[in-house]
Amino acid sequence: MTQQLNIEVRLKDNGYIIHIEPGILNRLGTIVSALGLRGSATIITDEQVGALYGRRIGSSLANTNVEMLAMPAGEQHKTLETVRQMYDGLLRLNRGRDSFIMAVGGGVVGDLAGFVAATYLRGIPFVQIPTTLLAQVDSSIGGKVGVDLPQGKNLVGAFYQPKVVCIDPTVLATLDKRHLSNGLVEVIKHGVIWHEQFFRYLEENVELLLSLDHETLVETIGRSCRIKGDVVEQDEKESGIRVILNFGHTIGHALETCTEYHEWLHGEAVAVGMLAETRIAQKLGLTTDDTFRRQEQLFQKVGLPTRLPPMDMERFQKTVLHDKKNLQMKIRLVLPVRIGQVQVVDDVPLSLVSETVRELTSQ
Amino acid sequence: MTQQLNIEVRLKDNGYIIHIEPGILNRLGTIVSALGLRGSATIITDEQVGALYGRRIGSSLANTNVEMLAMPAGEQHKTLETVRQMYDGLLRLNRGRDSFIMAVGGGVVGDLAGFVAATYLRGIPFVQIPTTLLAQVDSSIGGKVGVDLPQGKNLVGAFYQPKVVCIDPTVLATLDKRHLSNGLVEVIKHGVIWHEQFFRYLEENVELLLSLDHETLVETIGRSCRIKGDVVEQDEKESGIRVILNFGHTIGHALETCTEYHEWLHGEAVAVGMLAETRIAQKLGLTTDDTFRRQEQLFQKVGLPTRLPPMDMERFQKTVLHDKKNLQMKIRLVLPVRIGQVQVVDDVPLSLVSETVRELTSQ
Repeated sequence: MTQQLNIEVRLKDNGYIIHIEPGILNRLGTIVSALGLRGSATIITDEQVGALYGRRIGSSLANTNVEMLAMPAGEQHKTLETVRQMYDGLLRLNRGRDSFIMAVGGGVVGDLAGFVAATYLRGIPFVQIPTTLLAQVDSSIGGKVGVDLPQGKNLVGAFYQPKVVCIDPTVLATLDKRHLSNGLVEVIKHGVIWHEQFFRYLEENVELLLSLDHETLVETIGRSCRIKGDVVEQDEKESGIRVILNFGHTIGHALETCTEYHEWLHGEAVAVGMLAETRIAQKLGLTTDDTFRRQEQLFQKVGLPTRLPPMDMERFQKTVLHDKKNLQMKIRLVLPVRIGQVQVVDDVPLSLVSETVRELTSQ
Repeated sequence: MTQQLNIEVRLKDNGYIIHIEPGILNRLGTIVSALGLRGSATIITDEQVGALYGRRIGSSLANTNVEMLAMPAGEQHKTLETVRQMYDGLLRLNRGRDSFIMAVGGGVVGDLAGFVAATYLRGIPFVQIPTTLLAQVDSSIGGKVGVDLPQGKNLVGAFYQPKVVCIDPTVLATLDKRHLSNGLVEVIKHGVIWHEQFFRYLEENVELLLSLDHETLVETIGRSCRIKGDVVEQDEKESGIRVILNFGHTIGHALETCTEYHEWLHGEAVAVGMLAETRIAQKLGLTTDDTFRRQEQLFQKVGLPTRLPPMDMERFQKTVLHDKKNLQMKIRLVLPVRIGQVQVVDDVPLSLVSETVRELTSQ
């Protein structure tokens, strides 16, 4: 029975452990002090998560000087302005290079707090305590930190690794079902790009997962983190293979942008992005309909959308072209060959993308 | 005869070459393309330096798509707001991850452009083309990049190494004498902290240096870069020995802050900081009066101040205590044992600092 898992991410200079353990929030003090983090702690969180866990985490660090800085919740606050407010807060608290940051929250908090940690006094240590499934299996791992600009998502940032990632699956009980499904998309994506057997495990255990069975959660989060860790170990700075993690994201991001981030959660947009990109792979003769159907069925079981909303296609095309992974106006996509394997295809015709998006648009 | 020098900075992942060569500005194109930097180039500079060298550098990169982004000159513009304007400029130019930045200017431009390079799209390559002596021997080497906050200097930044540093000593002819002397302070500091023989070379060649003799400049800049490179190689992220580069800077920074950066150039403040910290070392019995006199005489030959201006001592003390290198309110100083060797002393009494500063204040 899987009660807790430790996953090691082995990097050249700055490897770290991902602890997955129900109830770990109560013993963070032991973990950080074992890492030599003995200075003042600053919890960076959002107002919602801070209200839920701030006190509990504070008291788990009984012997440390702990203070909390809370930002308003939401992607619209993942900005340089919020970063500046965090710098002000850290300076007000007189935090020096011997202090450290604990990022407690979803992906927005982790990305922003990680960027603050990467740049305050040219970098102080930080710890990731992801509290959404999406952050637990994806954004908290790999060291990508940053903020959005008005021109687009994640245009400013750094590669900066946490000292440790502590994942408590029990916190998922406070997530609504929609946010749980949202996180499952990246889990499913990990199966599609890397590991057919894990994809099958998800097909077989989706009900247990949705009922938040602890053992299934630990196993699923652990396997998913291991896949992400494998990819990151091979390509810390995203100059090669790491690009496969973008499967579903080129079309997904464009969808998010065109709907102004209002109607769709990130995972929901990525789910339909994965389906659209799989259909494109089919049209290019790279994969079979089975690859599409298995993803579609799993998304349906999880309660995720499988069709795109009607969109202004001209704007959509422009957005796809400006995606920062498309250098020099080429359309480059990560496409599945089969469940468990993807490949990078350069110069996918924009017309094929548009045609596919139109076909997968709900009437 | 020393006509050109190449200094290698050997770091674990990202070592690079410092080329010191009169006229190198005319052949930057060859150098960057030999490094594999073949994408679009963005020159980040200030309005003054851009007017002097922008066109010349642009035409040395004949086969590359080159554009220039110029900030207003001056430390008061080394801010997050200017960084944001640079992000906007890069996005307007549609710069992707395959593009690179050329930082052309003094320390302010190098620090700011380096921070933009470190964070735009999570980091794109950059090249340092320092055009002041201070930047050539100090700030362009070592990978410290960043900007100021209203609360203090260099509070935000990163460690981010350039792909190459290209130093053209002929550009120093456009510097006024005061800015030349300003840069010589860090050169002299390198002698005091690391190399008595180099200090003696400076004592013997100061007139040739001030007359901008090319051979002496190449030799001096080269030796100074070699010392800085030695220290940085041993401690890239400033967790140990690199702190010795701060000799003269604790008191120097406090002086800059207390005079609002108006009356004193950075090097001038560091020069009197070095003298004050040397006197403190004497009072602690660590060194002899000779260590003080040799520095004082060399500073005088170069035309640098050797006494502090009258200051509000209460504010000065507060500023020294808040210097970010003084964690947890201790006063930690790098003090000379003799010319060529320093040591770090923790817990220097604040009263001794104040007493010494008072004694070295001009009437």
